[in-house]
Amino acid sequence: METITLIPANSLITATPEEGRQLAIKMARLIIKTTQPDAQIRENLRAVYANDAMMLLAVGQTVAIEFSTIAAANDYWRVSR
Amino acid sequence: METITLIPANSLITATPEEGRQLAIKMARLIIKTTQPDAQIRENLRAVYANDAMMLLAVGQTVAIEFSTIAAANDYWRVSR
Amino acid sequence: METITLIPANSLITATPEEGRQLAIKMARLIIKTTQPDAQIRENLRAVYANDAMMLLAVGQTVAIEFSTIAAANDYWRVSR
Amino acid sequence: METITLIPANSLITATPEEGRQLAIKMARLIIKTTQPDAQIRENLRAVYANDAMMLLAVGQTVAIEFSTIAAANDYWRVSR
Amino acid sequence: METITLIPANSLITATPEEGRQLAIKMARLIIKTTQPDAQIRENLRAVYANDAMMLLAVGQTVAIEFSTIAAANDYWRVSR
Amino acid sequence: METITLIPANSLITATPEEGRQLAIKMARLIIKTTQPDAQIRENLRAVYANDAMMLLAVGQTVAIEFSTIAAANDYWRVSR
Repeated sequence: METITLIPANSLITATPEEGRQLAIKMARLIIKTTQPDAQIRENLRAVYANDAMMLLAVGQTVAIEFSTIAAANDYWRVSR
Repeated sequence: METITLIPANSLITATPEEGRQLAIKMARLIIKTTQPDAQIRENLRAVYANDAMMLLAVGQTVAIEFSTIAAANDYWRVSR
Repeated sequence: METITLIPANSLITATPEEGRQLAIKMARLIIKTTQPDAQIRENLRAVYANDAMMLLAVGQTVAIEFSTIAAANDYWRVSR
Repeated sequence: METITLIPANSLITATPEEGRQLAIKMARLIIKTTQPDAQIRENLRAVYANDAMMLLAVGQTVAIEFSTIAAANDYWRVSR
Repeated sequence: METITLIPANSLITATPEEGRQLAIKMARLIIKTTQPDAQIRENLRAVYANDAMMLLAVGQTVAIEFSTIAAANDYWRVSR
Repeated sequence: METITLIPANSLITATPEEGRQLAIKMARLIIKTTQPDAQIRENLRAVYANDAMMLLAVGQTVAIEFSTIAAANDYWRVSR
């Protein structure tokens, strides 16, 4: 389990909000991967939550929390780029 | 999945709180779209959560979390515009 | 759906904590209204969650999150008024 | 519904952490009171969630969120008073 | 219910992160104690959530929220001790 | 229960975001260990939540909240080290 990379590039800093959002999705998925390392089981479970309204909303909440941290890390990408 | 735009205009900055709130709703929906790319399935699931009290409350929680990030990014729209 | 006002007066700034709390409740309700525009269905669902202990707790969590943003926007109403 | 006071004393400022915690509990309860104004129904629902492990945990989450706002408002009661 | 102490030592300040974490657990438990003052019922409910995977996760979320407030109060114990 | 270490190394400070993420996972697990000290029961429950889509999402939310605190403690690892 320790060998899974949890944060790609080992940084919360991204060039744009869009990339920050992608990082939030990836970080959320990597926690699931760490908790359930079996790829086939994850694939089966993914089919479950992608077709369940309440679970899709739970995905949204998790990504929202991860993104709030990433956005703060990037000072909300306020400065011109 | 990578081709879906996650943050319209690639920015958290909006002119007004109202627009910030609209952005929060859009960002929450785009995570669902990324997780479930099939438009027909999403339409079916939308009918589920729009008619379920607990799921409507979950929608509200997700938007509230997204909005807290957007509001901070805009320094709460405190300065005159 | 776009025609529903999401934030009354288009501002997070309120004169008092009490008004901030009222705004939090309104903002939470307006997300539900946007997600379920049919007034009759909303009325039916309201009867559901107002009589269900777990859903009342979920209402409380959503309002708490909205209020945390509004309170920060108003610098917690610390300065004398 | 508009006649229920949502924040006692209309302030988030308290003398001590203990009083801040009591305020968090009261604020959480007043949202439930606003959503379900019938005292008898609330009493019945209270018996439900006080005897249900998952609902007690949900009460705890709501109070924790309310308290985080109150604690920030009071600058965590760091300075002597 | 008013006689239960909600925050031991009436302070969010602790000497170490470890003690801050212990305080988060205690504060979360004291809200449950306030909501359900009957020790025997609490003991029964504890057996429920200590043996239920989803409830254990809910315990973890509540403690995480309480700890975020305590950590901020202590400025994350950054300064040397 | 008091003998379980809740925060390894008694510090929220880590060298990298990756290590911060690992700490978030460990801290979340140690709360579960404190709440359910029996290793065999924990092992059984782990098999439950690692194979349940909704519970995996709940794991993700808890780690996200713990990580937000750790990231803030480390000033988001912005400065070079």
